[in-house]
Amino acid sequence: MRRAQAVPIATAARVEEVAVSPLPNSRKIYVEGSRPDIRVPMREISQSPTPGASGDTPNPPVFVYDCSGPYTDPDAKIDIRRGLPALRAGWIAERGDVEELPELSSAFGRARAADPALDALRFPRLLRNALRARPGRKLSQMHYARRGVVTPEMEFVAIRENNRRRAYLESLKDAGAVDALRFCHAGTRFGAAIPDEITPEFVRSEIARGRAVVPANINHPEAEPMIIGRNFLTKINANIGNSALGSSIREEVEKMLWAIRWGSDTVMDLSTGKNIHETREWIIRNSPVPIGTVPIYQALEKVDGKAEELTWEIFRDTLLEQAEQGVDYFTLHAGVLLRHVPLTARRMTGIVSRGGAIMARWCLAHHKENFLYTHFEEICEIMNAYDVAFSLGDGLRPGSIHDANDEAQFAELRTLGELTDIAWKHDCQTFIEGPGHVPMHLIEENMRLQLECCKEAPFYTLGPLTTDIAPGFDHITSAIGAAMIGWYGAAMLCYVTPKEHLGLPNKDDVKEGIITYKLAAHAADLAKGHPGAQLRDNALSKARFEFRWDDQFSLGLDPERAKAFHDETLPSESALRVHFCSMCGPHFCSMKISQEVRDFAAAQGIDEAKAHALGLEAKAKEFRELGSEVYKKA
Amino acid sequence: MRRAQAVPIATAARVEEVAVSPLPNSRKIYVEGSRPDIRVPMREISQSPTPGASGDTPNPPVFVYDCSGPYTDPDAKIDIRRGLPALRAGWIAERGDVEELPELSSAFGRARAADPALDALRFPRLLRNALRARPGRKLSQMHYARRGVVTPEMEFVAIRENNRRRAYLESLKDAGAVDALRFCHAGTRFGAAIPDEITPEFVRSEIARGRAVVPANINHPEAEPMIIGRNFLTKINANIGNSALGSSIREEVEKMLWAIRWGSDTVMDLSTGKNIHETREWIIRNSPVPIGTVPIYQALEKVDGKAEELTWEIFRDTLLEQAEQGVDYFTLHAGVLLRHVPLTARRMTGIVSRGGAIMARWCLAHHKENFLYTHFEEICEIMNAYDVAFSLGDGLRPGSIHDANDEAQFAELRTLGELTDIAWKHDCQTFIEGPGHVPMHLIEENMRLQLECCKEAPFYTLGPLTTDIAPGFDHITSAIGAAMIGWYGAAMLCYVTPKEHLGLPNKDDVKEGIITYKLAAHAADLAKGHPGAQLRDNALSKARFEFRWDDQFSLGLDPERAKAFHDETLPSESALRVHFCSMCGPHFCSMKISQEVRDFAAAQGIDEAKAHALGLEAKAKEFRELGSEVYKKA
Repeated sequence: MRRAQAVPIATAARVEEVAVSPLPNSRKIYVEGSRPDIRVPMREISQSPTPGASGDTPNPPVFVYDCSGPYTDPDAKIDIRRGLPALRAGWIAERGDVEELPELSSAFGRARAADPALDALRFPRLLRNALRARPGRKLSQMHYARRGVVTPEMEFVAIRENNRRRAYLESLKDAGAVDALRFCHAGTRFGAAIPDEITPEFVRSEIARGRAVVPANINHPEAEPMIIGRNFLTKINANIGNSALGSSIREEVEKMLWAIRWGSDTVMDLSTGKNIHETREWIIRNSPVPIGTVPIYQALEKVDGKAEELTWEIFRDTLLEQAEQGVDYFTLHAGVLLRHVPLTARRMTGIVSRGGAIMARWCLAHHKENFLYTHFEEICEIMNAYDVAFSLGDGLRPGSIHDANDEAQFAELRTLGELTDIAWKHDCQTFIEGPGHVPMHLIEENMRLQLECCKEAPFYTLGPLTTDIAPGFDHITSAIGAAMIGWYGAAMLCYVTPKEHLGLPNKDDVKEGIITYKLAAHAADLAKGHPGAQLRDNALSKARFEFRWDDQFSLGLDPERAKAFHDETLPSESALRVHFCSMCGPHFCSMKISQEVRDFAAAQGIDEAKAHALGLEAKAKEFRELGSEVYKKA
Repeated sequence: MRRAQAVPIATAARVEEVAVSPLPNSRKIYVEGSRPDIRVPMREISQSPTPGASGDTPNPPVFVYDCSGPYTDPDAKIDIRRGLPALRAGWIAERGDVEELPELSSAFGRARAADPALDALRFPRLLRNALRARPGRKLSQMHYARRGVVTPEMEFVAIRENNRRRAYLESLKDAGAVDALRFCHAGTRFGAAIPDEITPEFVRSEIARGRAVVPANINHPEAEPMIIGRNFLTKINANIGNSALGSSIREEVEKMLWAIRWGSDTVMDLSTGKNIHETREWIIRNSPVPIGTVPIYQALEKVDGKAEELTWEIFRDTLLEQAEQGVDYFTLHAGVLLRHVPLTARRMTGIVSRGGAIMARWCLAHHKENFLYTHFEEICEIMNAYDVAFSLGDGLRPGSIHDANDEAQFAELRTLGELTDIAWKHDCQTFIEGPGHVPMHLIEENMRLQLECCKEAPFYTLGPLTTDIAPGFDHITSAIGAAMIGWYGAAMLCYVTPKEHLGLPNKDDVKEGIITYKLAAHAADLAKGHPGAQLRDNALSKARFEFRWDDQFSLGLDPERAKAFHDETLPSESALRVHFCSMCGPHFCSMKISQEVRDFAAAQGIDEAKAHALGLEAKAKEFRELGSEVYKKA
């Protein structure tokens, strides 16, 4: 109890303010799978009916993918000092492939746990011992997938990706809706093949093939399974993390809650300041989404920031420490080789990846090969003991348009391809990080080479930024590149905030970055022909056409902003029901006129497009035939 | 004098606050052409030197395209009650093709001028009579271009597009800069052919061919010539305009000044409320950029918003009224034909173009063909008498993802192609408006068909928005599409603000929309291989790498925001000089480490990439050879 009182981070009441409560007109539903403990959360957005001369026509509720976890469920009991329920604990236990550890494997972890000075900072609930694969056993989702086993995680993911699309389409049909899926099967130019219905077996086969990853550390049983792969919905990641200069544990936990509220599919904790270990514990215990880290950041803290003093032993201890806390994926800059470093010497902006710069410095200082590369098989064994996924970092990604697609970048990419083979040999789930700064015309080459070198392992890109000239707007310069590379096949997009290159993002920046990346990912899903992606566009556009303002707001990515913007010009409640909006005023509203065009046609008994076309055909034909004469007359 | 005192709009002092004064570290320069009255404005951004062990290395000033007119020139005398100097008056007069009109051709214009109740609103300086082509004479830039004449306007444009690129490259060479143009000649996949140096003759040939337009109404001699065409810098347009519900003349003039300050290449006045005529006069007299309008909006006001009461006579009078005020281009929805209207009946969002909806309604109400279409040749004659350019409106553009690239849209596009031929027959300058809402994978088809149907007449697009689900963020959903279609060949991008679909943009929204579109246009210029586009990216990235914060701010599109964002985290003046930034702190700064990598290499006498590579080759070779063993050892 002492600890709980002393905890200087977010209390339940405080969290309540920040990120709890459903979004407008939304409720959390759970879709049950083949067994009662598979309960897949979705957000159901209700809609008001369409008013008409002959009464109201109902608009069925829309289901959307929901990353926000129990926090938006009013029935859930939230207490961040206790953490989330261990959703996956039973699934992990029943596979019989894990053992509880009597003590942490990491010496650093043990020391932190034993230090009474940290009591006030430490997450208070450490009832559960860390798990590890039993000796000689493998337990990754890839391992099971390759053996033909569909895990509960895979079934969860399949249900989640389908988003009740069929049920919604049935309800649309019942409501007599127009052809709502005109573009849903646009297909993609880049060889993705998204089935009409995602089955658990399809999920399994994609994981087995290495084309998709379900980050699912056995020590993070709180996480709701999700999948990263180009034949699924495009995912986004938000970075949080304190630095030496700012922010507290409380702020980081709040940022995580905030990030998932707005739709971040995973969260990377990039903390580099004090108490990294304790901050991470708080985040993981309360996170319903996978957590990623860059372990070299913490390792560097352990040697007081002196890259040349890093050792494999310190790094290995850090991997164990974080794996046993439950980190779901590690960014490892194992592809930065000694021979690649000189390739960066004539760059405009050198090495801009922090991890890449650290490893390059270490390599040069010791004149030895990157220890992440030389110890890669040993790292695979660690990853495998917990099912931590590899996020193979692009330490030599370009930091400017000038440096895009250069030899340094692609040399590293080829090395990442080699490492992918090794990771797969160990059944390690693996995805590949990508740039960076790339002008539009060079983005496709990035995707093509990544697919080729890394045999279709999922690509996880930062943007890319398509120009360097807009500091303060790099969420947008990068959303352009992100949407394009998502269309081409990138599976996850790492967000960029407006503060990129300038400072640390605050809460508003985090939200701005996330919504920007949600829309980019969705634009990619539309373009790559994800079945069902367009349902939400259609529903929102129908609401817009019918002046159902409230529905337009709640179907959007940011209902609060949409309503606030609307209310700035037309604030009254009644304005939400008038059939024009503030942009054009009553006379000029094209949507209003457009409705009148329809009504006019209907009034003449021409209520079907076909009949209409026939009725006007004679007249239209006449105009076509007289075409040039009409001009001459004028 | 009475009038001046009564004017209820911006005073010089007020304007001073809003949009006058140079941007940081910038000064206005003028590049003289072949005659002293061709003085092309540019913005020169100075840079601080790069500090080094052996002293400072200077960084030459960077020249950027400047739309802001005399307002950012401290030497210019600004008085918006007198308007800008008539820069082009001499060029127009010396061609001997115009006559002064004793009175306005428009009955409406004469009535407004004679109404004493409007004295207080009216622009006070009407010393100059309106001009018109002398009978039987043509005077458009296209007319002269086709006759082989290079006008001063064309020369002005050529100098402006070159942006002193050569001089800058020379100064870079003098400063010993690295290969600063690695990607400048990327070329484009879509048949654009941008020469290394824009000559006046190239400008002429592009205008003659119909592939570029210089909007230049003889009654807007205040405007600085600019060019719209895919073999030139991608341009952007900002819309301003009051509606029945808000804003005043003063606000509209201020919005125009604000828009050009941040880089809007043209401004469309879409006013639909009271005093449209007077508002427009104020805007044109003070605008250094071409002004576009949609004349049907004002015509509709004249019939109290009843589309069916519109007549050719009222519309014709409106064209004359606006042409003699100096509007540089007219959006005309002449491609909305009676036979097209039924094609929209099964759309999700019907007709979303206001002008398109008005014309569709008129067609249906009268069961007659669109009078803009039937009177098109007569319209050409009016356009030609003043050199007003056609912006052929896409009245049937899609208003939702669902409706993209449908038959209604493309049927109209084919009609616009026919109209282009007719306009060109008259030597009328012409560009074509485009969508709207289009998912990424359908954008290319839009560009391809437009080039084909309209024989490469410039394409001027609104976005397109690549998804419908982000109201409040549609500047971004559309910037994605805008950047892509700009790369594919669209010549001008009409901005979208965050308020799109929700309300009227305020000053902040206008700026947000403009900067977003400037970055999209620039991303397009990079991707289409515009020579020189990358110079600014390179300069900014170099400043970033060298921690020249002030230079990074002033080279960016929004120096104020960049500095404010930076200062939020690291506010002190000294922080602007430290060699790390707030994101990573001192230990983790990759740019700092990257510099150390270089220094380390230099300290070992390996200061050239080549030498470096050679020096490490033996070591690297060993690793490659031992490759698999290294893994086995681990």
